[in-house]
Amino acid sequence: MSIFADPKELTKSELESGDVFAPRFDENELILAITCDANTNELLMAAYMNQEAVRLTLETGFVHYYSRSRQSLWKKGESSGELQEFVEMRTDCDQDILQVLAIQTGTGAACHTGRKSCLYRKVFMADGDVRLQSLDMPQLFDPAEKYKS
Amino acid sequence: MSIFADPKELTKSELESGDVFAPRFDENELILAITCDANTNELLMAAYMNQEAVRLTLETGFVHYYSRSRQSLWKKGESSGELQEFVEMRTDCDQDILQVLAIQTGTGAACHTGRKSCLYRKVFMADGDVRLQSLDMPQLFDPAEKYKS
Repeated sequence: MSIFADPKELTKSELESGDVFAPRFDENELILAITCDANTNELLMAAYMNQEAVRLTLETGFVHYYSRSRQSLWKKGESSGELQEFVEMRTDCDQDILQVLAIQTGTGAACHTGRKSCLYRKVFMADGDVRLQSLDMPQLFDPAEKYKS
Repeated sequence: MSIFADPKELTKSELESGDVFAPRFDENELILAITCDANTNELLMAAYMNQEAVRLTLETGFVHYYSRSRQSLWKKGESSGELQEFVEMRTDCDQDILQVLAIQTGTGAACHTGRKSCLYRKVFMADGDVRLQSLDMPQLFDPAEKYKS
């Protein structure tokens, strides 16, 4: 049973204009959370949340996700120290996406590659060919060192 | 056949550190695009792109998506006038998400409700109850007027 309201029980108008939080979890009971730097608005990462991750994020002050690869709740930074302090959560017009505003603690890297943001490469087209180019985003930690067991 | 590289043919390291653009489209051949204001970084909206929408966005200078409800390519703002001028595209570490930096033209509303951003409501917890609260984001157009047939 959901701890939140059921979006199917709301009209389109209630879903879009009301004050009832009725997140539209997908067929895997997950919803995409887009996490941005609370100070700069910069997009840091996107990951999934299940109900429990949404609740724990709102209650504990630290951002939680659901890891699809590990199939388990994931308190961001619990093992790496790169915790995300929760500032604000928003939802979109049809409530199928969440935005999280957070402060990235630790070294300041939200990405497992050690960079501040996961969006560290630009897609560009040159002579009809599409390629990637690294943006100027330094590695704040060495992943080989951070994740060694 | 994809006009982009096949992510399955890349190693994890090539996918995360290389300069080959190999977007990981999902089982419906779509990829999520998160569109942000190119000047302020503000999150405006999130929608899906298919291969053609990615290509047209890079080639034409206007942001295109794929509408899942209409099952067709969607040049944002084509009927409403709320076009998005394309500035930059980025991809994330594992290339399963795109970020688009754009300038919202027209009235400046990316959301079909007439607001600048689709993220116009805050999720908050009070006395154990989770509710939504509207942020201070005025309606820049009247949807009833804009979308009348």
